[in-house]
Amino acid sequence: MKVIVNVSLKEGVLDPEGQAIKSSLNNLGFEHCSDVKIGKQIILYLDQNSESEVFIQAKKMCEELLVNTVIENYEINILKD
Amino acid sequence: MKVIVNVSLKEGVLDPEGQAIKSSLNNLGFEHCSDVKIGKQIILYLDQNSESEVFIQAKKMCEELLVNTVIENYEINILKD
Repeated sequence: MKVIVNVSLKEGVLDPEGQAIKSSLNNLGFEHCSDVKIGKQIILYLDQNSESEVFIQAKKMCEELLVNTVIENYEINILKD
Repeated sequence: MKVIVNVSLKEGVLDPEGQAIKSSLNNLGFEHCSDVKIGKQIILYLDQNSESEVFIQAKKMCEELLVNTVIENYEINILKD
């Protein structure tokens, strides 16, 4: 089963990469770009069939390794294929 | 308008970060994890109202700055809010 985890910075946490990209876009002539935020997308392939079990495992992976829950939020999407 | 750009490595391109995370997950006891791929999620806020214009602008930004089209694929999703 394929699991997509989107990790983004929490509201209020500085995002220097996003700010740098915003400035670059503005300098390139994209003046309509008012803000940019950068996150991570982690795609996990799990050899399990039960959707609820996959969700529990993915949540545990996020809390234990993938996400810094002090400064980051995450969102788990399970794709059935 | 909010635009979400998902950037991922093309098929066949080495993903050392994904491999490192996969090993770590396996070592932590998540043996069911057979593969991990890492991508970027870029959220753009554009001060424009026409959806087609926003799409064209976002595509141009990807080609000019955000994506290395030699090794990366991208996907543009426009959120109406």
